[in-house]
Amino acid sequence: MIAVFGHTNPDTDAITAAMVYANFLRRTGKAAAAYRLGELNKETEFVLRAAGVEAPPVLTDLPGGSTVALVDHNESAQSAPSLDESSVKFVVDHHKLGDLSTNEPIFMRFEPVGSTGTILTKMHREANLAIQPLDARLMLSAILSDTLHFRSPTTTPEDREVVSYLAQIADVGDIGAYAGEMFAAKSDLGDVPAERLLKMDYKVFEFAGKPYGLGVVETTNPGYVMGRASELLAAMDREKAEANLAGVLLSVVDILNETNKTLVLSATEEKVLREAFGAGIEGQVADLGSRISRKKQVVPTLEAYFGS
Amino acid sequence: MIAVFGHTNPDTDAITAAMVYANFLRRTGKAAAAYRLGELNKETEFVLRAAGVEAPPVLTDLPGGSTVALVDHNESAQSAPSLDESSVKFVVDHHKLGDLSTNEPIFMRFEPVGSTGTILTKMHREANLAIQPLDARLMLSAILSDTLHFRSPTTTPEDREVVSYLAQIADVGDIGAYAGEMFAAKSDLGDVPAERLLKMDYKVFEFAGKPYGLGVVETTNPGYVMGRASELLAAMDREKAEANLAGVLLSVVDILNETNKTLVLSATEEKVLREAFGAGIEGQVADLGSRISRKKQVVPTLEAYFGS
Repeated sequence: MIAVFGHTNPDTDAITAAMVYANFLRRTGKAAAAYRLGELNKETEFVLRAAGVEAPPVLTDLPGGSTVALVDHNESAQSAPSLDESSVKFVVDHHKLGDLSTNEPIFMRFEPVGSTGTILTKMHREANLAIQPLDARLMLSAILSDTLHFRSPTTTPEDREVVSYLAQIADVGDIGAYAGEMFAAKSDLGDVPAERLLKMDYKVFEFAGKPYGLGVVETTNPGYVMGRASELLAAMDREKAEANLAGVLLSVVDILNETNKTLVLSATEEKVLREAFGAGIEGQVADLGSRISRKKQVVPTLEAYFGS
Repeated sequence: MIAVFGHTNPDTDAITAAMVYANFLRRTGKAAAAYRLGELNKETEFVLRAAGVEAPPVLTDLPGGSTVALVDHNESAQSAPSLDESSVKFVVDHHKLGDLSTNEPIFMRFEPVGSTGTILTKMHREANLAIQPLDARLMLSAILSDTLHFRSPTTTPEDREVVSYLAQIADVGDIGAYAGEMFAAKSDLGDVPAERLLKMDYKVFEFAGKPYGLGVVETTNPGYVMGRASELLAAMDREKAEANLAGVLLSVVDILNETNKTLVLSATEEKVLREAFGAGIEGQVADLGSRISRKKQVVPTLEAYFGS
């Protein structure tokens, strides 16, 4: 049995890629089941509810003798705690290659595109495997989510082409309206505690050998999130201490206006934001301009700054 | 410009994969050129001569601003010395994933198949790119070489299927006869110095943090190679000292009878061969039975033994 899962603090791509790739593996003759490594965010809840499908179960223990397929991530810090003891046999991802290594040759497919959904769509087409309407809807949602409906600089021509292709199979109606509903769902954060807001789209990266937590809240209503700044800064402070981090950043990305305002926790983070990004800082908010992609704009800048 | 190259001590797959992938990249709109990281072996010389094509030039310095496509390898110890300073953007490989990591998402395609040629053939078919007869001949040769004409346990059903497919495009006549000519060329070692014999198909691996050199001579005439054992052991001894290795193994693989006799340099290697493989040892020769694949049989056994 192959256990298929995306990263912790899953987003729509991490959840749907696990579901679609598990189905792909089954349809090509391999026993596989999708799992998730955490709570759904509001956008993903909306996507699954609109598709009329249940979320995959949370991964607890890997069944004995099972192998692993990683989707939408490859770094151990973003994966299941037991990853070291399990046998990774498949990876489909669109992130940089981190600390993964294997004892034997495996199947890996990485492409620098906007979403794992784009790669999975290509894999179906290459295998001449007809994409099922549910899978089409899930992959289309993932691409719209990861690319912020093509606003993110991670968007590639292939993402656009694949969305047009999937739209013919998935019955979602007008793409712009559907993306708007997804982003509205994601921005409905009224009952979400500050801790959860920080962790909703949160990854730990190593820079110069030290761990940094990088959270992002993508929203159509940044004013609401900024109104909770003091709560969020308190949550960041607790997380930094508990997880022994060198720094924590939380970026509030305005999806519609394509801006990034990042909360500044302490003088440590302030120095990094000023020196690495040349960010203007007012109070506890750093203006990161239009750097709306953590993967393409924030992480590479920090890597260059820290020299890793 | 993308510089495309395979591993040091190149074999037929490393050379031909660089040539074919560079052509693939050019045909899909990217400027690319193939290089090699060392001398051709006799088999590869035969393959290129029979195809009527020149070998790619040896890579000296990477041209400024060039990016890199790795084929048939991914570990820095098997690659260009300047790899750290260059920007790897593409990897096509069928080996285990080693120490590679990247600062940005890249294109990677790994499959656990017998040869990089098999993956490259699939990539052409997936892209609906007609395979040119020269490329077909080169990839077919690489698959026959890496799989020892399907005798190696690394052989997969896809390798066989791809060879049948390529045979229709490449004009090589009877596959068995062509493979026989390749292996005879490879076994014509009369004028090859012992140093070169050791290094012809030679890779350095880390086990428990220490470097081990693993050479293989695949031949239809193992008696000839074994007749040069004392010369070869002297070359192994020099290499071990010069490269500061924890151990050196040289396996003489009888292609036709599918056996592996490995030269035993010192008590260190003897202990490993006895304990890891349960090998019977006579004089300076360890009997590794039918373990003819370094990748699939020798390296994983050593990894398990050393606990890495």
